[in-house]
Amino acid sequence: MIILDTPIDMHLHLREGKILKDVLPYTQKQFAAAVVMPNLNPPVDNKERLKNYKQEIIENSKDFTPLMTLFMREYSEDELLEMAEEIFSIKLYPAGITTNSENGVKSIEKIYPVLEIMEELDIPLSVHGESDGFVLDREREFKVVYEKLARDFPKLKIIMEHVGVADLLYLLDEYENLYATVTLHHLLLTLDDVVGGVLNPHYFCKPILKTPKDREEIQKFVKKHPKIMFGSDSAPHPIKNKLKGAAGIFSAPVILPALAEFFDGDIESFQKFISNNARKNFNIDVPKKEVKLVEEEWIAPYMVGDIKPMWAGKKFKFKVL
Amino acid sequence: MIILDTPIDMHLHLREGKILKDVLPYTQKQFAAAVVMPNLNPPVDNKERLKNYKQEIIENSKDFTPLMTLFMREYSEDELLEMAEEIFSIKLYPAGITTNSENGVKSIEKIYPVLEIMEELDIPLSVHGESDGFVLDREREFKVVYEKLARDFPKLKIIMEHVGVADLLYLLDEYENLYATVTLHHLLLTLDDVVGGVLNPHYFCKPILKTPKDREEIQKFVKKHPKIMFGSDSAPHPIKNKLKGAAGIFSAPVILPALAEFFDGDIESFQKFISNNARKNFNIDVPKKEVKLVEEEWIAPYMVGDIKPMWAGKKFKFKVL
Repeated sequence: MIILDTPIDMHLHLREGKILKDVLPYTQKQFAAAVVMPNLNPPVDNKERLKNYKQEIIENSKDFTPLMTLFMREYSEDELLEMAEEIFSIKLYPAGITTNSENGVKSIEKIYPVLEIMEELDIPLSVHGESDGFVLDREREFKVVYEKLARDFPKLKIIMEHVGVADLLYLLDEYENLYATVTLHHLLLTLDDVVGGVLNPHYFCKPILKTPKDREEIQKFVKKHPKIMFGSDSAPHPIKNKLKGAAGIFSAPVILPALAEFFDGDIESFQKFISNNARKNFNIDVPKKEVKLVEEEWIAPYMVGDIKPMWAGKKFKFKVL
Repeated sequence: MIILDTPIDMHLHLREGKILKDVLPYTQKQFAAAVVMPNLNPPVDNKERLKNYKQEIIENSKDFTPLMTLFMREYSEDELLEMAEEIFSIKLYPAGITTNSENGVKSIEKIYPVLEIMEELDIPLSVHGESDGFVLDREREFKVVYEKLARDFPKLKIIMEHVGVADLLYLLDEYENLYATVTLHHLLLTLDDVVGGVLNPHYFCKPILKTPKDREEIQKFVKKHPKIMFGSDSAPHPIKNKLKGAAGIFSAPVILPALAEFFDGDIESFQKFISNNARKNFNIDVPKKEVKLVEEEWIAPYMVGDIKPMWAGKKFKFKVL
């Protein structure tokens, strides 16, 4: 049996309404807390919306702490002062890069005043780091933006979200204020899973899955680096939207069984990646929750509501109790 | 006005029945002849099937010469002697690499006796050159196979089909008996068109579209190299199959208008790529046919039967008369 202490998903999409009700139980069963992304339509970017969204999550879960985020815009100091206690971070999306990011930030300099306030109030910045270049180069091209942000705001904690290329992870040792999350799918899949056989829309996501070499490097980093935290980026899309080309992988149901196989007995690294690194790096203090996995065959669900999960129907060696 | 002399599509999929009837008029209007691929279900791999398929094409077109191909299997010398006059080439698919290639060749050594006969009878070999490696590396990894084939059968004319990476095109100057076709989509699109925005199944094909750098190199080669011939690999799939992940781009309707824009006044290179290189390299002798393009706005069709064409609805500067 594997016993995990207070697992935290540092990057989660729950949506609202029926989808939230369908998907939240899978995260609640496996995690003590999750950082919940704000890219709803309309986005979570004011006190009212924040309060209501948090309430909706709490009403649909138990023994679970949602760590709320705001969608980046030009907030005033008063606005942030009012919400600082209620949020974990503010999420920066370059405009148009992923799902519901059309209202994202077009020029990073424009939000420098907000970043100054965040630095002062000790609110972390979560970043979807992609340029508007060629799809396989977008993360590497964003490296210079991460470096500029890290230098310009040395006291601002910056999370490079869902990193898919090791080039970014090398920055962790160069800049004290940079952190990273890694998803299950960037850790275990490659572009072959999307376009290697017949086209598989269910493994289409942004940032796009990369090469076997990128995956191998990330796997090495994840097993050892204290600034890398698990963030699933689990993103539920109804199957009809996936067939229209929506980006996102709904991995929530299979996370801990898949990671248990990946860490293959190295429980210390597993525990750090899934919880301790996040708690230490960001002083996250949520109620303790033990999650147990037993070595017993378990089959991933084929469908969750209208959503097809990652590795639907796959057999795993571990089952979450 | 641009007047092209006897354009030839050196790599075309027409399918059978209703699809053939829907798509063939687009090729017939723009080309004097086309090399027709044999990967039907069941494949074109015997005299009867070959004769009937050619007949079906002839009955559904006029002023058009189908250059027939056979699907590679372990043919006897007698079989090939009987069919040699009726075919342009034999097509080699590594097993399982693309549409209806499940019955392709598993071990290339196994068909060495066939290649010896082909060499003797002067029947060219058309090759879908991809390894079973990572999707972006498959063509580069196949380079050694092309080199081995070129060395082992120095008198066999080998066509590297639908080349998407320049590494293969450099072989043209190293091996006298290697030739190449390039498609419209590898010449003008990249992986961005498939997975750069929302997922676009209509631009999913094998070999997969590559990087902007690969595209740029191929564009340079196409404008100058006498051993590179146009082969559309236009591959019609009903929209319901595309949504299930089938690989292939139906480019036939837009070929000459798109190439006219690409060659941008360099009619000499256009003429060589679309006809002369093929005719010289392979002594192709088909009835002369002039195809005229006028500078007039033309909008690509949105649908052809149940098939969505490449660049559906796009405006072009040239129209085929």
